[in-house]
Amino acid sequence: MLTQTEPSLRDALAHARDLAQAQIEAALAPHAGPVAEAMRYACTGGKGLRGFLVIESARLHGLAPGMAAPAAGAIEALHAYSLVHDDLPCMDDDDLRRGQPTVHRKWDEATAVLAGDALQTLAFELIGHLPCSAEARLNLMISLAEAAGVGGMVGGQALDIAAETAAEPLTLAEITRLQAGKTGALIEWSAMAGPRMAGADPTALGQYAKHLGLAFQIADDILDVEGDAATVGKAVGKDDAAGKATFVSHLGLDGAKARAAELVDMACDALSDYGQEAQSLRAAAAFVIARDS
Amino acid sequence: MLTQTEPSLRDALAHARDLAQAQIEAALAPHAGPVAEAMRYACTGGKGLRGFLVIESARLHGLAPGMAAPAAGAIEALHAYSLVHDDLPCMDDDDLRRGQPTVHRKWDEATAVLAGDALQTLAFELIGHLPCSAEARLNLMISLAEAAGVGGMVGGQALDIAAETAAEPLTLAEITRLQAGKTGALIEWSAMAGPRMAGADPTALGQYAKHLGLAFQIADDILDVEGDAATVGKAVGKDDAAGKATFVSHLGLDGAKARAAELVDMACDALSDYGQEAQSLRAAAAFVIARDS
Repeated sequence: MLTQTEPSLRDALAHARDLAQAQIEAALAPHAGPVAEAMRYACTGGKGLRGFLVIESARLHGLAPGMAAPAAGAIEALHAYSLVHDDLPCMDDDDLRRGQPTVHRKWDEATAVLAGDALQTLAFELIGHLPCSAEARLNLMISLAEAAGVGGMVGGQALDIAAETAAEPLTLAEITRLQAGKTGALIEWSAMAGPRMAGADPTALGQYAKHLGLAFQIADDILDVEGDAATVGKAVGKDDAAGKATFVSHLGLDGAKARAAELVDMACDALSDYGQEAQSLRAAAAFVIARDS
Repeated sequence: MLTQTEPSLRDALAHARDLAQAQIEAALAPHAGPVAEAMRYACTGGKGLRGFLVIESARLHGLAPGMAAPAAGAIEALHAYSLVHDDLPCMDDDDLRRGQPTVHRKWDEATAVLAGDALQTLAFELIGHLPCSAEARLNLMISLAEAAGVGGMVGGQALDIAAETAAEPLTLAEITRLQAGKTGALIEWSAMAGPRMAGADPTALGQYAKHLGLAFQIADDILDVEGDAATVGKAVGKDDAAGKATFVSHLGLDGAKARAAELVDMACDALSDYGQEAQSLRAAAAFVIARDS
């Protein structure tokens, strides 16, 4: 399936990324200086998967990409903030992100802290300006806060950091919970954004994204073992070097691949009510485990 | 005036602080672990001026303190996030805040980054749950994002950091602009929150807060020269040691005090339409330049 749909998926991802980036650029246009520059820089490159999920889930609910674009920009800004802070020396201490120097390497740590901070703020600002009802915008804002905060993404990050100094490696259940926060929450928000904008039930797309998010993270663990740093765009082999428990260390490479494939099937099954209209979301699910970066 | 009103102002500040803190505690109740603990810790102590401005401006517009409390919690959480990140080694590198060890000293830098991040998120979450119209909540959310982001607070922070390595000390106009972002934007948001919740015109309270915010920062510069570290609750004498341009370095101690007093008068003048009802806001204006911490 992937070979067939990849070119059009690639186009759709690029299109969604352009829409998201245009929103971010427009919001930052009045601002100069290193922090604003670092914000722009942090939002370039990347797969744009989260923005794509926003655009596609909106399309499935009859909303044009242009209408959904501010929400795509919001989730990409929020994701970029998390990467900028995650890369800091006191966190993962990474020099490379998306094949380019990380923000604190290109500028400095203070600029990276502030750029990340302001990118989070920008996400909420962009949602405030969506062309949908006040109720829908509030729904998106509250759900984004829940997904991003200590009960979601930051909570997952905190578990990840605690695991580094824990006496025992994490169990599979603990890794799954950690990833549901760290990666899963924003991916779920993205796929649920469309129905939420339209005032529709987001349950099916939430299920899709839940499986997709976990498959995505398993694929990340596999890339850390099998990937090439130049293609992946960041350092690889870090988990093993750090003796970190991952899906691969628990399930083995073949077991992890089988689990990821199973999750992709479950993700696709959740889309059944949407029929052929959801084909690009199915292709995206296949893509997250077939990608090389 | 201050001597007369200080006891009741002190009570009103404490009451607003309790209301704000209860909102933050309730939102954090389901969460355990060091990041959630650090979030709670960062929100204790402090003057609670911003939450007080929310509660009082709401009262002036007929809204009970209990109704406005989530917005008071939101602005105190957002303010706490800015302090936690501002104290980081890569920023101001402070060991002491509100008389206690800073978050990165009590825990570590990663916890401080994450706690600050999640406190910002919490601010938006709390606004989402205010018991007022969807339009009013959106108005508060968008204005908070504008006040906190690269065009407001973070923009002021960025100017402050840039000034440290600038060839020339900042002019008075530049310091004023810097402070309007760094301190002023959140203070203005706080005083405008009441009318915004009520769907009323926030202009007069915005004017009040604009003068108040600048007076507040001039008082901070004076405290850095005249204050006692134990009473102030953080290091003093830092500006002079760093050769930093401040309101005091430009205007002299007496000039700075005169300017602050003039701004307090202007702040009080802006309240004329509110009559006697605004007495506590007038007392607060007097307090910001008479405080010893």
